[in-house]
Amino acid sequence: MDLGKVMSALADPLRRSVVLELLDMPQGEERTCASFQLPVSKSAQTFLFRVLREAGITWDPNYGNRRGVTVRQDDLEKRFPGLLDVLRSERDRTSSS
Amino acid sequence: MDLGKVMSALADPLRRSVVLELLDMPQGEERTCASFQLPVSKSAQTFLFRVLREAGITWDPNYGNRRGVTVRQDDLEKRFPGLLDVLRSERDRTSSS
Repeated sequence: MDLGKVMSALADPLRRSVVLELLDMPQGEERTCASFQLPVSKSAQTFLFRVLREAGITWDPNYGNRRGVTVRQDDLEKRFPGLLDVLRSERDRTSSS
Repeated sequence: MDLGKVMSALADPLRRSVVLELLDMPQGEERTCASFQLPVSKSAQTFLFRVLREAGITWDPNYGNRRGVTVRQDDLEKRFPGLLDVLRSERDRTSSS
């Protein structure tokens, strides 16, 4: 994992919102990429999940008929302690204002 | 300050290294932009300091004959608690390996 790639991936508000939704799930649970209601085209969604995967932020195993997605929460906490909390605090701050 | 702009600014390793050098200075002290030995052209340096300033990460007052620069450490800690520590930990991790 490279901090530059991770920061670059998280610079986008839509990508941050996907990561935050994933962080809200119980650990170990997986969503499908298709389950997100994202206000962008299918190809932009594919790109979004690719950027997150390539930055090392998510796993998104391809099951053939669907693609799962989870945040690599433990890896991220270990490698960049506090980074996910920055996202959470910012979400809480903006949603309460 | 916008987290996206800040993350985007910090995605670049050279910009992170400038921020870390500034964080190492005693609070309240200022460096000049010209005092950094950066391996890029003058215009790239001007751009680098502009990106940091526009993201709200630094102040760089123009004194006419020189430009100072400081990190807005307190503002950043208040708005994005833990973010600067992520940069510091990453620097410590990579410099000790």
